[in-house]
Amino acid sequence: MRQSQIFTRTLKETPKDERSINAQLLIRAGFVDKLMAGVYSYLPFGLRVLKKIENIIREEMNQIGGQEALFPALHPKENWQRTGRWQYPEMFKMKSRAGKEFSLGWTHEEIITPLVRKFVKSYRDLPLAIYQIQDKFRDEFRAKSGLLRGVEFIMKDLYSFHKDEKDLDRYYEKVKKSYFEILKRCDLEKQTFLTLASGGTFSKYSHEFQTVTPYGEDEIYICAKCRVAVNKEIIREQPLCPQCRSKKLEQRRAIEIGNIFKLQDKYAKAFSFSLKDKQGREKNVLMGCYGIGLPRLMGAIVEVHHDEKGICWPKEVAPFRAHLIQVENTSKIKKATEKIYRYLQNSRTEVLYDDREDRTPGEKFADADLIGIPIRIVISEKTLKQDRVELKKRSDKEIKLIKTKLLNSHLIKI
Amino acid sequence: MRQSQIFTRTLKETPKDERSINAQLLIRAGFVDKLMAGVYSYLPFGLRVLKKIENIIREEMNQIGGQEALFPALHPKENWQRTGRWQYPEMFKMKSRAGKEFSLGWTHEEIITPLVRKFVKSYRDLPLAIYQIQDKFRDEFRAKSGLLRGVEFIMKDLYSFHKDEKDLDRYYEKVKKSYFEILKRCDLEKQTFLTLASGGTFSKYSHEFQTVTPYGEDEIYICAKCRVAVNKEIIREQPLCPQCRSKKLEQRRAIEIGNIFKLQDKYAKAFSFSLKDKQGREKNVLMGCYGIGLPRLMGAIVEVHHDEKGICWPKEVAPFRAHLIQVENTSKIKKATEKIYRYLQNSRTEVLYDDREDRTPGEKFADADLIGIPIRIVISEKTLKQDRVELKKRSDKEIKLIKTKLLNSHLIKI
Repeated sequence: MRQSQIFTRTLKETPKDERSINAQLLIRAGFVDKLMAGVYSYLPFGLRVLKKIENIIREEMNQIGGQEALFPALHPKENWQRTGRWQYPEMFKMKSRAGKEFSLGWTHEEIITPLVRKFVKSYRDLPLAIYQIQDKFRDEFRAKSGLLRGVEFIMKDLYSFHKDEKDLDRYYEKVKKSYFEILKRCDLEKQTFLTLASGGTFSKYSHEFQTVTPYGEDEIYICAKCRVAVNKEIIREQPLCPQCRSKKLEQRRAIEIGNIFKLQDKYAKAFSFSLKDKQGREKNVLMGCYGIGLPRLMGAIVEVHHDEKGICWPKEVAPFRAHLIQVENTSKIKKATEKIYRYLQNSRTEVLYDDREDRTPGEKFADADLIGIPIRIVISEKTLKQDRVELKKRSDKEIKLIKTKLLNSHLIKI
Repeated sequence: MRQSQIFTRTLKETPKDERSINAQLLIRAGFVDKLMAGVYSYLPFGLRVLKKIENIIREEMNQIGGQEALFPALHPKENWQRTGRWQYPEMFKMKSRAGKEFSLGWTHEEIITPLVRKFVKSYRDLPLAIYQIQDKFRDEFRAKSGLLRGVEFIMKDLYSFHKDEKDLDRYYEKVKKSYFEILKRCDLEKQTFLTLASGGTFSKYSHEFQTVTPYGEDEIYICAKCRVAVNKEIIREQPLCPQCRSKKLEQRRAIEIGNIFKLQDKYAKAFSFSLKDKQGREKNVLMGCYGIGLPRLMGAIVEVHHDEKGICWPKEVAPFRAHLIQVENTSKIKKATEKIYRYLQNSRTEVLYDDREDRTPGEKFADADLIGIPIRIVISEKTLKQDRVELKKRSDKEIKLIKTKLLNSHLIKI
């Protein structure tokens, strides 16, 4: 992609109404634009990152047998009355001209449970796992943390259906592992703690995936002894580690990027979704639900992976693999840089080509650091004489000179 | 994909509350589920078709220089007041707990115009074309035509920005061509008429893309002489062909799957989006907008491409390329069919494998016809002896016996 043709541009000033690092950097670098508190537009670079994250999640969900579907955002009142959640204060509600009442979904148990009930007629059809990646809405009083707390936000929500507790437990553990696979690919694995949270009426605990960063909205407590993490809610009930009973707990700020719950038969009961077991006894179907907020994950990546100059995208979620920069506007350098651009395109390397002629090299380098593409490639008169290109990793200070014809094998290795 | 593992199933009965062919077939075949009037869930097969259509549109939009972005569904009241469209009766409106008023977008001029204004500071940055594929909402009184008239629906909306009329005209023609490219790939080109519609205050005509089918919601009039199509609105004003003045017009029912408008400076004016031209004169930016409803396109494909047994998906939008059917549950046939399944997977053919053991061959063939995958493959004792497989096109009656090792080259050719 040619940078001269993209309609966005980097901003010199930090937006005044954003206090969070993720929003400041993502707006300045041209990834997102704020429409209003908690509601952002994804601009071309931002959408590329979002799609990368989406694909990582999709691959991992398919890996654990998830079947992808897409459910509506608009929900009829009746479904939410059935579970007693119509009055949920953070749910947007509205009335049609014909007088019908709707809400905007912030979760989809009320939609998926009666839907699956239509198709599943025997316990032999279970287990089953269905997910979607879809737009959600929440009437937030305080939407101040950029992408971390959205009023409108894309979520991956997976729902699983089981014939008994043992099978639900088995799948729950599988999802845990899958989430760490996703975190690994987003380079957040080391910073993220599987955190005990209250499990509500049915299970002792649910789990949150909390990414530790200095400006996270949540507080978690990490046991100094056994490294189990616990959320604030649980600590308020019992101020000690639930696993080893130690009272030595380190407080950390963190971002909840995902959570997993055993719903047991709460929703099956509400929608009369029961099946006969092997012995012919009617039993409610058991369910689990598993969420990941995509903007939160994107925001968390920026909070963790940045420096004073800008964002440092991890390889798998970066908008491009390489940032090719034309440092001089002489026909010789232009020709050589164009040649490398075509070469990279032909080898299917995703490359952003800074071909803008009205910027100084210094401005271009500053933009490259702000945008945060993992590898920077520069061709100058000097490198051209040696038949080499200059290669710099965003995360390193060192500049390497490598032979032009070895560029591709280098890019693969890095 | 193994059919035994998919949670949906085909339905024997036509849903009573659906009168349109597209919804009847799509529901019976397990592509979509109706949540309420005008609001559908996309089940795994349906989502596959939707994604294929999405990718066709994305490729064609990129081809004409479109930059993809993603804008919010939730809009602040102020933007719509600015253009005088807040009172639009089909727009859903709501209030947050904090008293802020929002609407749900059915189009995005009110969002994209001020956004682009932030970035574009010179006429040299134009032309510019930005699009998204995104969920839209419309408070419809009558949502009775299945996927053809949605209360919630995914749309591709492209907006273009120009420095003068000539450039807007040039791009408008480019989009027209691009739309016919999309229609060709969806096998709707022959049935679709570029139809003159009223252009509002600024241009004499806008254009609709109307696909002729017996149950379309719209009426168009095709000039028997010059084959120009005109919509009802225009005919009401002047009951003759606007091109050749002929009064011989054939009335047809049709589905409006897309439309294109020259917006001129209506929205630039509302948001004070002007730029200095070469001569230093301040001029409003000119805009065009270009929509395609994805569910409508999907519904139109079904209305056009079906027979009494079910859907006949065109190649490029089919959920799978081939439907492999295991007709006997003997270990010999199972083994041979599994082998073909792996072979097709390895050659990256998208294949649905009907490995269900509790269905008769007759039930499986009926399901295959209903689901409508372009090619059906069957292995039986008889074909196995000859080292051949049975191959049938959904659109043909003829069954061909082809050598197993030539299967792949056959699939590519068809």
